[in-house]
Amino acid sequence: MDPRWHQALYRTEGINSEGLEGHAYVPDGLNVKTSSPLNNHPGTNPEQLLSLSLSTCLEATLEAIERERQLSHTSEVRVQVAFIGARAHYEFLVNAQIKVAGVDFETAKSMTAEAERRCCVSQLLAGSKNYTVETVKEFSQSK
Amino acid sequence: MDPRWHQALYRTEGINSEGLEGHAYVPDGLNVKTSSPLNNHPGTNPEQLLSLSLSTCLEATLEAIERERQLSHTSEVRVQVAFIGARAHYEFLVNAQIKVAGVDFETAKSMTAEAERRCCVSQLLAGSKNYTVETVKEFSQSK
Repeated sequence: MDPRWHQALYRTEGINSEGLEGHAYVPDGLNVKTSSPLNNHPGTNPEQLLSLSLSTCLEATLEAIERERQLSHTSEVRVQVAFIGARAHYEFLVNAQIKVAGVDFETAKSMTAEAERRCCVSQLLAGSKNYTVETVKEFSQSK
Repeated sequence: MDPRWHQALYRTEGINSEGLEGHAYVPDGLNVKTSSPLNNHPGTNPEQLLSLSLSTCLEATLEAIERERQLSHTSEVRVQVAFIGARAHYEFLVNAQIKVAGVDFETAKSMTAEAERRCCVSQLLAGSKNYTVETVKEFSQSK
């Protein structure tokens, strides 16, 4: 397959054999109860897990950028995910909002652009028209 | 922005303000401790969270396909994620392995293709050359 798998700095695996109402787990790692987002059973879901993955990846990248620019850490990332569609054709919308409180807005926009390009999860989503990233002064509901 | 946000069946939000060594959370939902995959601090990371999101999404889709085809539930999904690269340019590789024990291999391949197309997280990753999906008779390390 892709020879780059052999150059991995880190590898992990997530497993689900139970479906949406069940559990997903990483061997020797995180184990989460899952449930449909459309009922009120306790549990997380693909939407929440994706929002946590992307927000952490973008925030980690912003932290690195802050360090490289010798800025103190003032960034925050909020990722909203919406589940849309109808039977047999569903989609997710993903919008990341990035706020960097400690710098002027132009600098925050340049840091956002750099984080969007460097964050590994962001790169994976970059080909989708359903993925957007914005720099914000205040967080708000995506619309 | 995109008017489809207003038609959402479900919306959620993941927040990270602390970085890679900290926490990420969904308000009123999952809260996880995070840490770098390259140290041994306790915590999950973007790689694990993405693997759990995608494996749950694919498995939920396979469950629906099994139901539509009046098959009993025998599918399992394992998603491997590798972190590759070097300073200032890192990437993730993502490979999903799908096993459907209860059907012949040709049927399993057709169910895999359908799940890859219908699963919302899979759709988001479809534009990336780093994302692959395979049907397997037995799970193995991606390579």
